[in-house]
Amino acid sequence: MSAGWFRRRFLPGGPFPEPRPAGPRSSPVPYHRPRFLRGSGSSPGATDASRRPDARPVRSPARGRTLPWNAGYAEVINAEKSEFNEDQAACGKLCIRRCEFGIEEDQEWLTVCPEEFLTGHYWALFDGHGGPAAAILAANTLHSCLRRQLEAVVEGMMAPQPPMHLSGRCVCPSDPQFVEEKGIQAEDLVIGALENAFQECDDVIGRELEASGQVGGCTALVAVFLQGKLYVANAGDSRAILVRRHEIRQLSSEFTPETERQRIQQLAFTYPELLAGEFTRLEFPRRLKGDDLGQKVLFRDHHMRGWSYKRVEKSDLKYPLIHGQGRQARLLGTLAVSRGLGDHQLRVLDTDIQLKPFLLSIPQVTVLDVHQLAVQEEDVVVMATDGLWDVLSNEQVALLVRSFLTGNQKDDPHRFSELAKMLIHNTQGKDNGATGEGQVSYDDVSVFVIPLHSQAQEGSGH
Amino acid sequence: MSAGWFRRRFLPGGPFPEPRPAGPRSSPVPYHRPRFLRGSGSSPGATDASRRPDARPVRSPARGRTLPWNAGYAEVINAEKSEFNEDQAACGKLCIRRCEFGIEEDQEWLTVCPEEFLTGHYWALFDGHGGPAAAILAANTLHSCLRRQLEAVVEGMMAPQPPMHLSGRCVCPSDPQFVEEKGIQAEDLVIGALENAFQECDDVIGRELEASGQVGGCTALVAVFLQGKLYVANAGDSRAILVRRHEIRQLSSEFTPETERQRIQQLAFTYPELLAGEFTRLEFPRRLKGDDLGQKVLFRDHHMRGWSYKRVEKSDLKYPLIHGQGRQARLLGTLAVSRGLGDHQLRVLDTDIQLKPFLLSIPQVTVLDVHQLAVQEEDVVVMATDGLWDVLSNEQVALLVRSFLTGNQKDDPHRFSELAKMLIHNTQGKDNGATGEGQVSYDDVSVFVIPLHSQAQEGSGH
Repeated sequence: MSAGWFRRRFLPGGPFPEPRPAGPRSSPVPYHRPRFLRGSGSSPGATDASRRPDARPVRSPARGRTLPWNAGYAEVINAEKSEFNEDQAACGKLCIRRCEFGIEEDQEWLTVCPEEFLTGHYWALFDGHGGPAAAILAANTLHSCLRRQLEAVVEGMMAPQPPMHLSGRCVCPSDPQFVEEKGIQAEDLVIGALENAFQECDDVIGRELEASGQVGGCTALVAVFLQGKLYVANAGDSRAILVRRHEIRQLSSEFTPETERQRIQQLAFTYPELLAGEFTRLEFPRRLKGDDLGQKVLFRDHHMRGWSYKRVEKSDLKYPLIHGQGRQARLLGTLAVSRGLGDHQLRVLDTDIQLKPFLLSIPQVTVLDVHQLAVQEEDVVVMATDGLWDVLSNEQVALLVRSFLTGNQKDDPHRFSELAKMLIHNTQGKDNGATGEGQVSYDDVSVFVIPLHSQAQEGSGH
Repeated sequence: MSAGWFRRRFLPGGPFPEPRPAGPRSSPVPYHRPRFLRGSGSSPGATDASRRPDARPVRSPARGRTLPWNAGYAEVINAEKSEFNEDQAACGKLCIRRCEFGIEEDQEWLTVCPEEFLTGHYWALFDGHGGPAAAILAANTLHSCLRRQLEAVVEGMMAPQPPMHLSGRCVCPSDPQFVEEKGIQAEDLVIGALENAFQECDDVIGRELEASGQVGGCTALVAVFLQGKLYVANAGDSRAILVRRHEIRQLSSEFTPETERQRIQQLAFTYPELLAGEFTRLEFPRRLKGDDLGQKVLFRDHHMRGWSYKRVEKSDLKYPLIHGQGRQARLLGTLAVSRGLGDHQLRVLDTDIQLKPFLLSIPQVTVLDVHQLAVQEEDVVVMATDGLWDVLSNEQVALLVRSFLTGNQKDDPHRFSELAKMLIHNTQGKDNGATGEGQVSYDDVSVFVIPLHSQAQEGSGH
């Protein structure tokens, strides 16, 4: 979303034209660097992973090019918007190795990882801001973090119910009952692995950007197919939906200053020093001005989902912590998303007010049990950055998907690539008569189309 | 839930037999004191309200007696469990007066409240713990707080869309557009009023209990019918459900240490000093012991909905911040609910560790648009304290409700009272063949049955 960066970050008339870079800029990470599903080696967190023999090459989805993937299941296309593309993508086979455990005298575990054990598929979209660096790092790193997190728990995932102790030994005879009562299943370990992988990746990006003197952040939307289930993890404002003949199901929620208002206001209430006396925590329908002083106006605070009236005091005239509406809503006048990776050095212009304390790197994870779904050939998951969803609703995308797949031959191996292209074209003022809207996106747009049928047929890969 | 207090608060084998009272106990508030819908006068927050002429008498629902209410719409019955009943209830007509505004020279508003303007209905259940004092105070106070909050915004509620300025004057020509863009409706003012009323009532209870040297807390479940909508506000583990011929809809969520785990763990992560080195923030399937040291066991932290494995360290052997499962789950080994009113002085036994920082007094509010519902004569809302829901599921209650209302004459004015009684009897091992379960509740149980049809017919009362 490079072209959209200034639009996305700054409201018309907002007081903060540009954040101060944290340090001298070095040359940016080249956006077209080939990426591999093992760590690139430049990332400390990925060093170990880069020695492992499970790499699958994936080309960077640079300007307007289709991303080829050896498995042929997914396609991604970026709009030709900017020299340095802030949308980045990664996909590939995920190869989890089994760790075998032995006990040494001091109860330390000896870990041996000899073989590929469990395979899955991985798709990820990263929508950068403040430059492409964070998105590129995330596309190069997150799958390695995830694989490492999964390998740390894969033994527990293979049992009908994860054991209390990873070794499988029962210290207490009723341990299985405790795990049963908590309702812990194998999928909870994948959810935990995704949550921890996002956090680990955020740490890696923070260190890498600081070391190279670069800045920026990105959203992250990840889909993982593993053991018959599709996991969708989202931190930011990208979106994934399931489209079937008679069903549209949103598989992710957006995390923006608006959707996370109460969490953000609560933090400012707990730590007022984070606002440095420059912002007001309260929400009003618009920014207040001198004429409002002394009057009772609509407002809400951190504890309120509803609204009330308060008498306006001088401190209420400060710039709002969250300001603007819908697409225009900004956190501290600066950022349009409230979750994602990076942004460790991001500050409000000409101040020391940091954005990072208000941002979460943790994704929300939803699980789709594909094996329970009685999947049909036309059932797909569409993942896309906000550039698509800004101009097309879920229903419009579903209409386009169904219409396209009905009209194209089932044995065409490229039809899902063509569908992804067609969706992008519909945001560019081309071919969008079908939606009857004709809206145009000026943001970068990236789309994955994942046909569920081939996933379900392939199974867990175990 | 007086008889249930010790069961609810302390796990078998838990380390904390009883919290230390904050000060010398004075004589408890008499549980049978008649209550009025205007403030009792003993509460500072209700003093002003008690001068207003809108009182409707409601008798206290003491041991095993039916609560008569002048409007005849609702019934509440308490089980005969204890000398001092910790379940308390209140219901009655809610009379909101209009505030007329004039402007003085200094832009201060002159408020005149001459007449009753908008009427609604109010039902509330309070399930006390640590004694009945907080529940009695809440039953005597919350409706006054709510009326005051509603009177402060009622002018805004009467417009098709609440105005930016309560006075209705437009400071900025596009103010209506800002309010429109935020989607603010009259119902948001009622939600805000409920949220603020709970908070205000909690402050009143804190001051009253401190002044009288008493202790305790309570859950609060409130239903308000206003302008054709039913608002259900819940803080605690009571529950309200809608039962129709072909629909069961839960109108509230329970707030317990389990359901609010992440919020509570997050707070302990932010303020580790709240645990005073005595508790571990992490969740494990069971409390860890020496044998687990050095092993990798299942755990999760504040940022995780999923699970992972961690190597056990000595600090993990501390008593867990949240311990136990389901009905047995306790916050700091002490409390079974995570939202409610009171508990300002509650501490973990023999420590200075306070519970109150972890508790919220803010309710979650859901809105049922009764006028949109095409209400039938048999449609009711069942509100009950946890004593009912511990032994009967939503489906079992719906089955009992439908079966009872089909078998009883429509013109019997007492049939909803009889239905409430029958539901209680079903938790006492009487008449519960219908559910085929035969489970018995040893907790206090209170039930309201609200027939929606008469509400819908009566309309807004405006």
